[in-house]
Amino acid sequence: MSVIDEVLAANARYKETHDASLYSPSPRRHLAVLMCMDTRLLSAALGLDFGDAHFIRNAGGIATDDAIRSLLVSHYMLGTKEVMVINHTDCGLMKATEEEMHQIIETKAGRPPNMPVRFHAFKDVAKNVHEQLERLASHNWVRKELTLRGFVYDVTTGHLTEVPWECKRS
Amino acid sequence: MSVIDEVLAANARYKETHDASLYSPSPRRHLAVLMCMDTRLLSAALGLDFGDAHFIRNAGGIATDDAIRSLLVSHYMLGTKEVMVINHTDCGLMKATEEEMHQIIETKAGRPPNMPVRFHAFKDVAKNVHEQLERLASHNWVRKELTLRGFVYDVTTGHLTEVPWECKRS
Repeated sequence: MSVIDEVLAANARYKETHDASLYSPSPRRHLAVLMCMDTRLLSAALGLDFGDAHFIRNAGGIATDDAIRSLLVSHYMLGTKEVMVINHTDCGLMKATEEEMHQIIETKAGRPPNMPVRFHAFKDVAKNVHEQLERLASHNWVRKELTLRGFVYDVTTGHLTEVPWECKRS
Repeated sequence: MSVIDEVLAANARYKETHDASLYSPSPRRHLAVLMCMDTRLLSAALGLDFGDAHFIRNAGGIATDDAIRSLLVSHYMLGTKEVMVINHTDCGLMKATEEEMHQIIETKAGRPPNMPVRFHAFKDVAKNVHEQLERLASHNWVRKELTLRGFVYDVTTGHLTEVPWECKRS
């Protein structure tokens, strides 16, 4: 049995207890969290329950065009007012350079990519968070009414540390 | 007190009980889930616990370049072998056309965007899932060893329905 088939079996059991009235499409706490997809980033470490926030997740917690798109939908369509950007220690994107990641994957895949990929590898996690905040703020639809704050999550201690950043949006 | 300050207070309490030994960066069940950031999509509905899977989340559950990047990291660097793409009923991206979303946000923001945004609005959720599977499979680094399956989650009933799709990757 594949893992996906196990998920479908679990869903068949879950739906007997499903209560659609518990959740609204608008996050209860008006919060959006842009963070890495890493398994070690737990909503419990943020004290957030299901329904509290939008979680936008990708490799690294990078402010890609896709993350900005999602944040705009979250803010303008679903009423979020605060954004946390969370990167973490020991991130896979810190363990190789952009070029090394391309080489590793090209070797495993056995062919060059037919479409370009930029992995957004980085070395300094606090500096990387700062860059993501700057990138979000560079879009003029990310207006100053939307609070942006950035953090590093330490996967060893479970502690969030804020990255100082001065917002210069108009 | 802002919501983010409440999160930081919760994190200060959480870290007293943090146990780093419980989680590995490699998803325990070798699964990646690309799904919408919507608050109504719960990991409980999939029977997945923290540490089981990578969750890649954006508005809609769209196979953007960013989602493909994240899946490549998940598969080649962290050993995932199966991918679920999950879109859902009542998605915000089905409630307006691409042009209407631009108009709504431009009016609220009070200015045209300084960088282009494509929202990936859609009308038919099953058709949209099919398109995301095709898009993922179009990247030649998404090799056939990586199982791809697509689903529609019904937010009213809590039920996942598979979208038939024939994989033609080499």
